[in-house]
Amino acid sequence: MKIGYLQFNPDFGKTDKNREQIQNKLENIKADIVVLPELPVSGYFFSTKKEAEILAEPIPGPTTNMLQKISLKTGTYFVSGILEKSNGNLYNSAVLISPEGPISTYRKTHLFYKEKEFFQPGNDYFIVDIKGVKIGMLVCFDHLFPEAARTLALMGAQIICHPSNLVLPEIAQQTTRVRALENRVFWIMANRYGSETKKGKTNTYTGKSQIIAPNGKIIHQSSAEGDELYITEIDPEDALKKNITELNNVFEDRRTDIYIN
Amino acid sequence: MKIGYLQFNPDFGKTDKNREQIQNKLENIKADIVVLPELPVSGYFFSTKKEAEILAEPIPGPTTNMLQKISLKTGTYFVSGILEKSNGNLYNSAVLISPEGPISTYRKTHLFYKEKEFFQPGNDYFIVDIKGVKIGMLVCFDHLFPEAARTLALMGAQIICHPSNLVLPEIAQQTTRVRALENRVFWIMANRYGSETKKGKTNTYTGKSQIIAPNGKIIHQSSAEGDELYITEIDPEDALKKNITELNNVFEDRRTDIYIN
Repeated sequence: MKIGYLQFNPDFGKTDKNREQIQNKLENIKADIVVLPELPVSGYFFSTKKEAEILAEPIPGPTTNMLQKISLKTGTYFVSGILEKSNGNLYNSAVLISPEGPISTYRKTHLFYKEKEFFQPGNDYFIVDIKGVKIGMLVCFDHLFPEAARTLALMGAQIICHPSNLVLPEIAQQTTRVRALENRVFWIMANRYGSETKKGKTNTYTGKSQIIAPNGKIIHQSSAEGDELYITEIDPEDALKKNITELNNVFEDRRTDIYIN
Repeated sequence: MKIGYLQFNPDFGKTDKNREQIQNKLENIKADIVVLPELPVSGYFFSTKKEAEILAEPIPGPTTNMLQKISLKTGTYFVSGILEKSNGNLYNSAVLISPEGPISTYRKTHLFYKEKEFFQPGNDYFIVDIKGVKIGMLVCFDHLFPEAARTLALMGAQIICHPSNLVLPEIAQQTTRVRALENRVFWIMANRYGSETKKGKTNTYTGKSQIIAPNGKIIHQSSAEGDELYITEIDPEDALKKNITELNNVFEDRRTDIYIN
């Protein structure tokens, strides 16, 4: 299975321009699943909820239509961050797009900082079967809570797709390695780079998107800056093998009899 | 509060010699809590359960007596790995020693590889109050299971003391940084170094003992080889502050309503 990500730097609020650039980068892709960053069409650093509302879109909508067209042409499935509007609420979501259109939407469950003023949190973890492989989705800050990835892994996820707009340097690059290892899953962290300034405050996004193997090894890591479309071939069966020694299994060795949560 | 560790390389099976060397290194110590590696008196790589039985000791016993004497003289509390014999069973334990003697014993709950043939697992996590600071204990492989550290942190642990004999290079150096960060606790990982060979198989222990701050930063890391007694001053109150932004708290933001375990 060919999996990958697009590291990208959207221009804040320029949704048409961003979609066009994404389309240009992806339209000749040869891959099974490709992950895009969090909010790659709208940008991230909203000053007000009103500003976010103006940039939000429904599912299906312009972004999923654009990705569906590429999916139809190339056979690639996409997991993309999206500023989702639904029933008057805003969500910081990841949407999974197939040749038939968007097939499921994960709404970020751990909202970071001011996102709490703009978005409703999601209330659901789930996995989706793509070409016989079980996919789970998380968004950015979800990485800090081990229970989120653990929940997906226990549900059977083999690949965790993780659109991100990371601002804390090197943190998620570490946590996602540990999450992949402790659950023995593949992890695709698609981060953005660049910066956004609002009212004298600047968010700098840390790039270094990465794909991690179930043994915790970095298969590939991008630079801190610069667009990169990276695709690699993996064997998703590796994520079904939960043993780390002949006698140790990351699921069976868990002591759920004595953990508190 | 002054916390630290002793990185050390015991000579397998030479319990008297190892105790003497530990005593020499610690007897003039000035610290509040010092952590020793896993099994620093017996060594680790047992060929048979019989061999482990011969090297095991009760609590209280020769090792805790030796550490109690130093504790009485210096006022330092110790967390040491110990090969514990109790009611005919063997445990891979961490014992907390005060001037009054051993005050509590944690038995490793996640046994690594052949340990499953030698030891009974422990069935309990708990915290102990030392000089007004809440201490939790884990042993070596427990680090791989995020639920173990999370359980101690939720119980109120400010410092996690982690005697280790790590053989997988660089893994626990990563996981313990992430555990400290995701729980906002101090973490003292006291590892051994050197190697042990039995029946043509060699265990190489990876050193690089480390102390991590609640923000995930490495306060100090030892070399891969060599004895080191390292002590540093910390403010344990830092581990009571669970916010990572004004609006994000590593405990309050948890979504226990939707996690599965």
